[in-house]
Amino acid sequence: MKFGIAVFPSKKLQDLANSYRKRYDPHYSLIPPHLTLKEPFDATDDEINEIAKKLGDVAKHAAPFTLRAYKISSFQPVNTVIYMKVDAVPELLSLYESLHSSEFGGESQYSFVPHITIAQKLSNDEHSDVYGSLRMAGVDHEETVDRFHLLYQLENGSWTVYETYRLGGDS
Amino acid sequence: MKFGIAVFPSKKLQDLANSYRKRYDPHYSLIPPHLTLKEPFDATDDEINEIAKKLGDVAKHAAPFTLRAYKISSFQPVNTVIYMKVDAVPELLSLYESLHSSEFGGESQYSFVPHITIAQKLSNDEHSDVYGSLRMAGVDHEETVDRFHLLYQLENGSWTVYETYRLGGDS
Repeated sequence: MKFGIAVFPSKKLQDLANSYRKRYDPHYSLIPPHLTLKEPFDATDDEINEIAKKLGDVAKHAAPFTLRAYKISSFQPVNTVIYMKVDAVPELLSLYESLHSSEFGGESQYSFVPHITIAQKLSNDEHSDVYGSLRMAGVDHEETVDRFHLLYQLENGSWTVYETYRLGGDS
Repeated sequence: MKFGIAVFPSKKLQDLANSYRKRYDPHYSLIPPHLTLKEPFDATDDEINEIAKKLGDVAKHAAPFTLRAYKISSFQPVNTVIYMKVDAVPELLSLYESLHSSEFGGESQYSFVPHITIAQKLSNDEHSDVYGSLRMAGVDHEETVDRFHLLYQLENGSWTVYETYRLGGDS
């Protein structure tokens, strides 16, 4: 089974992200707007029970963090993903590192760029157009995040929440 | 904000439900297959904090239950919802009652028929056709449920998980 770890921002920020995703993100109907903390990984039922427990420990020793989405950016030329760039505050970086320790399969092959995707799988021409207008629209939003979720993927590609973890362990 | 309380069954049962929902349920992309424990209700941020805490108490005093989906049924003539009928075991009924005490707004206007919707908003003719074939296909599935989720609805009608509660309080 495929699992992932993500933060869902507030309804307000999700609604804003969805107003763009609806037109520009083919994953719009598969998962709510989110900040990925750990890319999808495979695990068996036994493994995930173990991982779920360890995640409780990670959450307990982590702290709530300020999610500040402060500009629209793009991964081009690597790909045509357009996203809300999220401030890489120490609490968030520390949480990300805890989720990429050797216990959790070690470092990612990518460096961590905290973001909320609002457009993807665009052609280069679409990307130019959409990126221009979204960058103009901009974003300036701040909120406190006090939880993250462990999710698994169904056969149709959509994601279901398995467990919720409170940062600081106040559950 | 609109909130709801639901159980997501295992991936296996969700995949089966989605194989039908994809064609017959316009809510297919708004929420994963689920068993509703409490119909959508409105709450402010303050109210939901209070409710979220009380739900922790409810979960702690509830017990995991066996979810047995044992036949395909329909709410006709009330409406054209077709669903997997779920065994109304005592633990599930008790949990439902706890979620409809005076603390949580009291009794529902409907009697509780535990179910997982697989088709809805069909015309009467569609209903006849689809119900006939789904009833023939049938369902016979059993699993243990040890958690439920509090969700909220976004502006586009989709649902995001806010909190996960473990039955028996083992979190």
